[in-house]
Amino acid sequence: MLQVRLRGLALDQSNSPVVILEVEKTNKGFGIWIGPFEAEALALAVSGKDFPRPLTYDLFLNTVSQLGGTFEKAVIGQVKDNIYYATLHLQDRNGQLHVIDARPSDCLVLAVKNGFPIFVEDAVFAESSIDLSNLQTDTLQHGQEEENEGFKKFVENLDIEELKKHFRGKDENNESS
Amino acid sequence: MLQVRLRGLALDQSNSPVVILEVEKTNKGFGIWIGPFEAEALALAVSGKDFPRPLTYDLFLNTVSQLGGTFEKAVIGQVKDNIYYATLHLQDRNGQLHVIDARPSDCLVLAVKNGFPIFVEDAVFAESSIDLSNLQTDTLQHGQEEENEGFKKFVENLDIEELKKHFRGKDENNESS
Repeated sequence: MLQVRLRGLALDQSNSPVVILEVEKTNKGFGIWIGPFEAEALALAVSGKDFPRPLTYDLFLNTVSQLGGTFEKAVIGQVKDNIYYATLHLQDRNGQLHVIDARPSDCLVLAVKNGFPIFVEDAVFAESSIDLSNLQTDTLQHGQEEENEGFKKFVENLDIEELKKHFRGKDENNESS
Repeated sequence: MLQVRLRGLALDQSNSPVVILEVEKTNKGFGIWIGPFEAEALALAVSGKDFPRPLTYDLFLNTVSQLGGTFEKAVIGQVKDNIYYATLHLQDRNGQLHVIDARPSDCLVLAVKNGFPIFVEDAVFAESSIDLSNLQTDTLQHGQEEENEGFKKFVENLDIEELKKHFRGKDENNESS
């Protein structure tokens, strides 16, 4: 199992959002197509911007905290028909572990906000990984995003085709988040 | 405290989504402007449609359930500068009550999906309520929405002006959800 970090957010040629995940201490990673709402939420989480009212993921985290739950990690454990499957691992207040089926996009937003790590199973990495050395994505670090830029700050020259060649004709209606 | 139900979803003249809530067994209610993402999530929840992967609110509910939490109710307790404030009330597995600050839009989506009731404080109702007798909104009941129509099934002749007169120049950037 390999730890990944959020390398960037981009739009492909058909304006579908793609999250670029990079395996720590390598130049290898992979892209996951996510929905526009999830992309917006991720961009807001990355921006570190505070809002006067709790957004959905804030309410989610507050509720888990009130119930004594603690997030441990998320694991991207499978990829099938271009859809990535993840699990959210959390402990209840008795220390019991709970593993919950989740979309990677939700895991990423929660991870950015809460600070827990994200891992990818070796088999998924082996199947999906590409060389990110020449990727011109800006690294998005929590709090470094310019205010109000959010998801508009896209990468112009991301070689989406390199990512896409790992997907046989991504179906727009078959969201991979 | 009065119980409310979701009477309908509509768009105002500037295409901002409005949720119409009605006090049970009356023709009185009020409108809350919500964000487009939350409106979409609410429409999906009302449609009762199942998705192959858990959406954000499904993950939220699954996580609370795994931690032994039980939703009791949501309460719209305050309105200030056109912004409605709500609280989410849930019990942990030891029966202890937790009250969490939330936006009405999140409470509504969770309530529709989970089946818990929504209440409004008398003072909020007194300040915001209007007569809904002539409102041409279709009642949206869980599961009754035509498949794939979702939020596109808007009400054409909703008298938004009647709702708006309760708000002094709603600020588009000052979301009331």
